[in-house]
Amino acid sequence: MAHKYVYLFSEGDASMRNLLGGKGANLAEMTKLGIPVPPGFIVSTEACTKYYDDGRKISDEVVEQIFAQLEAVEKLQNKKLGDTANPLLLAIRSGARASMPGMMDTVLNLGLNDEAVEGLAKLTDNPRFAYDSYRRFIQMYSDVVMEVSKHEFEHIIDKMKEEKGVELDTQLTADDLKEMVKRFKDHFKSVKGFDFPQEPRKQLLESIEAVFRSWDNPRAIVYRRMNDIPSDWGTAVNVQAMVFGNMGDDSGSGVAFTRDPSTGENILYGEYLMNAQGEDVVAGIRTPSNMIELKDFMPHVYDEFMKHSNKLQDHYKDMQDMEFTIERGTLYMLQTRNGKRTAQAAIKIAVDLVAEGMIDKEEAVLRVDPKQLDALLHPTFVPSALKAATPLAKGLPASPGAASGQVYFTAADCVRAAARGETVILVRLETSPEDIEGMDAAAGILTQRGGMTSHAAVVARGMGTCCVAGCESIKVGKDSFTCGSAVVKEGEFISLDGGTGNVYVGKIETQEAELTGDFGKYMAWADEIRTLKVRANADSPKDAKVALNFGAEGIGLCRTEHMFFEPDRIMAVREMIVAKDVEQRKAALAKLLPMQRGDFEGIFKAMGALPVTIRLLDPPLHEFVPHTDEDIEKLAKDLNIPLAELKETLEGLHEFNPMMGHRGCRLAVTYPEIAEMQARAIMEAAVAVNKAGQNVIPEIMIPLVGEVKELKYVKDVVVAAAEDVIKSSGVKVDYKVGTMIEIPRAALLADEIAKEAEFFSFGTNDLTQMTYGFSRDDAGKFLEDYYAKKIFESDPFARLDQTGVGQLVEMAVEKGKKTRPDIKLGICGEHGGDPASIDFCHNAGLEYVSCSPFRVPIARLAAAQAKVSADRGVINLGQK
Amino acid sequence: MAHKYVYLFSEGDASMRNLLGGKGANLAEMTKLGIPVPPGFIVSTEACTKYYDDGRKISDEVVEQIFAQLEAVEKLQNKKLGDTANPLLLAIRSGARASMPGMMDTVLNLGLNDEAVEGLAKLTDNPRFAYDSYRRFIQMYSDVVMEVSKHEFEHIIDKMKEEKGVELDTQLTADDLKEMVKRFKDHFKSVKGFDFPQEPRKQLLESIEAVFRSWDNPRAIVYRRMNDIPSDWGTAVNVQAMVFGNMGDDSGSGVAFTRDPSTGENILYGEYLMNAQGEDVVAGIRTPSNMIELKDFMPHVYDEFMKHSNKLQDHYKDMQDMEFTIERGTLYMLQTRNGKRTAQAAIKIAVDLVAEGMIDKEEAVLRVDPKQLDALLHPTFVPSALKAATPLAKGLPASPGAASGQVYFTAADCVRAAARGETVILVRLETSPEDIEGMDAAAGILTQRGGMTSHAAVVARGMGTCCVAGCESIKVGKDSFTCGSAVVKEGEFISLDGGTGNVYVGKIETQEAELTGDFGKYMAWADEIRTLKVRANADSPKDAKVALNFGAEGIGLCRTEHMFFEPDRIMAVREMIVAKDVEQRKAALAKLLPMQRGDFEGIFKAMGALPVTIRLLDPPLHEFVPHTDEDIEKLAKDLNIPLAELKETLEGLHEFNPMMGHRGCRLAVTYPEIAEMQARAIMEAAVAVNKAGQNVIPEIMIPLVGEVKELKYVKDVVVAAAEDVIKSSGVKVDYKVGTMIEIPRAALLADEIAKEAEFFSFGTNDLTQMTYGFSRDDAGKFLEDYYAKKIFESDPFARLDQTGVGQLVEMAVEKGKKTRPDIKLGICGEHGGDPASIDFCHNAGLEYVSCSPFRVPIARLAAAQAKVSADRGVINLGQK
Repeated sequence: MAHKYVYLFSEGDASMRNLLGGKGANLAEMTKLGIPVPPGFIVSTEACTKYYDDGRKISDEVVEQIFAQLEAVEKLQNKKLGDTANPLLLAIRSGARASMPGMMDTVLNLGLNDEAVEGLAKLTDNPRFAYDSYRRFIQMYSDVVMEVSKHEFEHIIDKMKEEKGVELDTQLTADDLKEMVKRFKDHFKSVKGFDFPQEPRKQLLESIEAVFRSWDNPRAIVYRRMNDIPSDWGTAVNVQAMVFGNMGDDSGSGVAFTRDPSTGENILYGEYLMNAQGEDVVAGIRTPSNMIELKDFMPHVYDEFMKHSNKLQDHYKDMQDMEFTIERGTLYMLQTRNGKRTAQAAIKIAVDLVAEGMIDKEEAVLRVDPKQLDALLHPTFVPSALKAATPLAKGLPASPGAASGQVYFTAADCVRAAARGETVILVRLETSPEDIEGMDAAAGILTQRGGMTSHAAVVARGMGTCCVAGCESIKVGKDSFTCGSAVVKEGEFISLDGGTGNVYVGKIETQEAELTGDFGKYMAWADEIRTLKVRANADSPKDAKVALNFGAEGIGLCRTEHMFFEPDRIMAVREMIVAKDVEQRKAALAKLLPMQRGDFEGIFKAMGALPVTIRLLDPPLHEFVPHTDEDIEKLAKDLNIPLAELKETLEGLHEFNPMMGHRGCRLAVTYPEIAEMQARAIMEAAVAVNKAGQNVIPEIMIPLVGEVKELKYVKDVVVAAAEDVIKSSGVKVDYKVGTMIEIPRAALLADEIAKEAEFFSFGTNDLTQMTYGFSRDDAGKFLEDYYAKKIFESDPFARLDQTGVGQLVEMAVEKGKKTRPDIKLGICGEHGGDPASIDFCHNAGLEYVSCSPFRVPIARLAAAQAKVSADRGVINLGQK
Repeated sequence: MAHKYVYLFSEGDASMRNLLGGKGANLAEMTKLGIPVPPGFIVSTEACTKYYDDGRKISDEVVEQIFAQLEAVEKLQNKKLGDTANPLLLAIRSGARASMPGMMDTVLNLGLNDEAVEGLAKLTDNPRFAYDSYRRFIQMYSDVVMEVSKHEFEHIIDKMKEEKGVELDTQLTADDLKEMVKRFKDHFKSVKGFDFPQEPRKQLLESIEAVFRSWDNPRAIVYRRMNDIPSDWGTAVNVQAMVFGNMGDDSGSGVAFTRDPSTGENILYGEYLMNAQGEDVVAGIRTPSNMIELKDFMPHVYDEFMKHSNKLQDHYKDMQDMEFTIERGTLYMLQTRNGKRTAQAAIKIAVDLVAEGMIDKEEAVLRVDPKQLDALLHPTFVPSALKAATPLAKGLPASPGAASGQVYFTAADCVRAAARGETVILVRLETSPEDIEGMDAAAGILTQRGGMTSHAAVVARGMGTCCVAGCESIKVGKDSFTCGSAVVKEGEFISLDGGTGNVYVGKIETQEAELTGDFGKYMAWADEIRTLKVRANADSPKDAKVALNFGAEGIGLCRTEHMFFEPDRIMAVREMIVAKDVEQRKAALAKLLPMQRGDFEGIFKAMGALPVTIRLLDPPLHEFVPHTDEDIEKLAKDLNIPLAELKETLEGLHEFNPMMGHRGCRLAVTYPEIAEMQARAIMEAAVAVNKAGQNVIPEIMIPLVGEVKELKYVKDVVVAAAEDVIKSSGVKVDYKVGTMIEIPRAALLADEIAKEAEFFSFGTNDLTQMTYGFSRDDAGKFLEDYYAKKIFESDPFARLDQTGVGQLVEMAVEKGKKTRPDIKLGICGEHGGDPASIDFCHNAGLEYVSCSPFRVPIARLAAAQAKVSADRGVINLGQK
């Protein structure tokens, strides 16, 4: 028997989503449930994949099956496609496995031509309706199938309305519409050079093909990438007998949700429009009515709708988003699906459904997209205040949240103004590591240059500070910035929306995130369920507190380099860098020791008994030195060394590929005294807090290891310092020494490395760079081409590449455990905050993920989802 | 039973080299053969390893065994260590598994103290001898064991000779020497603060420990790294009863080879010195006599020596390097080993030994270190001419060979002078890709800056051109260079020795390499034996011809980028780079197409029917654009575009980490038209030569692939162009499309990639960079620390890292073959010319290695050695 590519609605059900697409599977399910659905069939996603495999061609095999099912539908409806007396009209709609609203194409009223329109007019005794349907068909078919833009058709409609002196399309008469059809066809011919296609079966096949094609249109590709939908899924095509909301005043179309998708409140929410097809509701050509009005206007239809609506919600056990049409007083359901909702609504609905006994907690934790939580964790503008504001400019939404404050143009000014008690916004051409303190003091950051992975964006996300980056329409000056003719001076107020990238002049009231109530209850369920622990990446006591507040169970990555930039210590750091010998270097390090000890003490205090992993100095030393002639001259003076000598030293620090240069543990190999100072500071801090009754177990992490002897060399330095501190203080401190796995070779030789490492923390940022062989800073130039050409479907720096980088992670886990069965395993790359990557980490057997504090709740939820999915995988599929 | 750490000579033999070290195993073997060897014992290499494992301490267990064997030797000699009447004196010598001449320490005459010296004087009735031995012992023991430099002792000797008015040390009397001992002891006490150690057993243990320690002295570490000797081998210590060449005029010491180590001629070669210990022969305090003189002077001893010498050469089936001592007319053999020899001698000896029936061809190919061949492949100075010359300066020996020519300071001047028929030397501060043509025209290259992996060094090695790099003592100006007060002006002659780094003023006569005769015969044996093919990396018809001349069996890597730098095309390349759209880019590429076609035609013609792998454009585009303001202004004028616009375009090309940036196939993804042009040029060239009767099968190689879809995208472009050329020309050309495996992800996903790739070529340069996470250009800064701290033992860019990078290679071979059993596998990284790496490639199942033309003979020999070793491994060890 031939492979089946085309299914009648009555042949499918909701479980066949992958094959029939979401819309198709639900149409089949509704048919099965006895809900009134106009009959139809589904051309499967497999047919779509085949279409592409066959070189963008529908095979004869599939065509045959389409026509066979068409005949079945014709029988059910007792009409024939293209029949001049009793024509069957069809709606052709896309329907992928995952909902991609508005991304792909639809053709309605298919089957009309110059003869059938007359038949339809006679049959319905409604020529106005018939020509209205025909002109809609010409417009949609031309646009979707024939690449004749719909805009010119809109102009023709507007011109007609003007000529006829009417405002609404419903005011046009049958003759007007007949004339319109003529003009549409003329326009079509003038563009294409041939007549509008009249053969209905050809219309059908070409429309199906157009829907297949639309799977690959640029906006669909972008949408898939944003939503992690694989390009090889393909879309199904739903071919359904038309019902008509535009048959007169007893007809109409509408859209409704079983609950309020914006608040989650348990009330029917939606609207309808009489004498209109579905597209008109969305297009907003007339103002639709609220669903509640239907109750009075057509009580019978309303009651029936409520019956179906409740049935569907009970059946799917989730809030439903439904489309329906009323044809001469008869209700037809055209679609149902689990409705999209705001983060707030998602949580309320999940919590309510559990309370209503409809779902259990495991199911509930699957119901909220972890990424949605982000919106709940940051301050937002008070909606009423925002409504009144008009954006001045728009940049990239680089770090979420909303902020209102006074503008300053240097990090130092920000720090001073914040100290005066002002709420400040740092505005820079672009930021650099030297701006850290100012960024930390600011409520929001705005930059003229830089992308989503620019310094400002990355650091702001880490800090949870609102940031709009790459706002190219502003020009940043010394003490003001301009945007067109507008000038914003130092000290004036602006407001930033890090979720949209909007920049506003003036103050807009903000409100804090609410982490209790339904949110708190929901997150507690997630915590109950998950087995993967969630730590945070935090470099200061302040970060540590935020992380704790968001539920972090430790610090998975405390970077020590940020601490080096503070103005009171950068000079000692630079002294250390330009030191001529070990003695000079040690003298400079001695100045840093008490400061580092203080840093660690603060973090230990904040974290109580929770584990804290501290990474030894990682970046290349040239990141700490000045680069402009002016700053170098100043440094020479400050350090009292000849300018020429300093310049030579600094030139010596230059690297061709800093990412692959003298950094990480390589620094400690060359300058063991740096690692020694840091180990001493960590242990002295631990001694201090443990003396005061805490029981901190510091985890000292050696970065960028590629060879076990390299790890051993640095570890020996660290252990010697640690033991010395313990011995001289007389206070016992347990500590661990481990490494990052972020170099491919470390993963390949993890069995060797585990001999020395008590823990592995996967640094998947660097591991991704090295495994792919491209640096994050440079890949921006070509990744867009990779997406456009469908080589990559997601950003490997945002979503862990499971087949390549993941293979190294799994290899290292296996090899590491073989050598040291109790080895601690975690991940501290930015992937630690990405739900799909967290799922991978759960399945790879890691103990924890670590992410930026503001992503901790996201990670907690994703970890719970990973657990439930894995458990269900075992139960449902007999495999993990 | 306790583990045995100490062996009598009579307990060992030559097969125990790993345990007893080379010297010890041979002493044991000679003892077994009945050759007169003073008795002794060997403290094994395991004892050395244990010494380090135990924290640099000789364990009680080992001490016990040492003293037990000491007693056995005392019995054999009927003397006792430290006995005042009949003292046993001992020689303590290092002896590692591989010979490390002069790298480690020796103590002679051990066992003497203030009493034993008197006993020795009485016993031998030779107080002069006794005190001579004692003063020697004090000097050596102080230097080796006690860290009191020997130089001050030398001063004391010189001063004594002056006081006594004598010239030779043999002219000093017994009393003089007694006085000298006193002065030596006084000096020792003044430095150390305590008396010279008198306890012989303690002297023994401390000497053994000192030898163990010397395994790890800095010069030994450097030597091991240069010679790829693992640091965990350790050294054995040979403790042997002393015999005395300094007992009078019937005593002496000498060194001899069974054949001439510099020419290989089959004649006894060596020298001896009467009334001297072995060290005196080497130190050159008196002029030794030629061995042949011994025949007349002590015919009996000479005959006996010849008997032993022939026996040893027959036994070891190789040229022997022997040490001996004559004590009062009795001959003792103190050492034999396979002698070091020049490349020329190595080949002659191997060929002669086969002719003499002593060894077979398989054994013969193992007898020459492939790296030695290098010296035979390049021009050298005529020895007599070189003797007369004094170096002006010394730089790094960056590329071997000798050259004499007239100095020019720009690439353009070199090209012009060479065109006039001059032999030229290019002298630059440092070279850049724009100098390629000048480098190609030059007979030698001298740079002031840059290391062994600088641009000049890498390119020169590739071209086989002699190069001295990083010659910091010269200062390069516009039309002259200076060195101290010397000034060398444009057009003047200098001479370079790329093997030593020496720079000479003036002309020194050179001679060409001789590839026939014994060399030709020997290489033919290697070719008969090996199964691994050897190709060359060659970018021009000229390179291709050199490669063929050296025996290359194809081109494994033809880089197309070097072709882009030629002055007549760089402008078109730049036009292509600054093009604003596809049309402009295509217009520029159209200019390049015929030039590229010409390049490939020349190479195809040179290679006949041999395979040629051509790599599509690889480096980032910014390598092709000018960087100085002056050059940029000129380019703007030449291209007739506004300067500001050009500057912006060029700035846009900047990359943070060019090694991990927009290069390789990433360029072809962004600009498919570049790959299209190159594919077209390759295929048009193939069509042209095949029309003329050749049968070229071009292998088109897509670089830097990390993902199969990326490969497929570029491959589709290449195949479309290729098929178009075939179709429009009507000439059938077979061609293959494959990829480099040089990104870790490509190795991890080689099974996927093999679906599209018809061949893999391992680009182990980049693969090493990515796997280790450090770039070759930057690693120079810290690799020295890695060697010093014993983290790395060899340069991973020179010797393939088998455990890490090799793991990826093996993985890719396995996965690639699984998908495509007949996939072609080769290596084109610089490791392709390194013998140890070639051995790995043979065992990993690669089909060929590709290396620079001048390394082809080295690779041919290494491939034969890999085959013989693998075969013997199977036979001898029952495993591969």
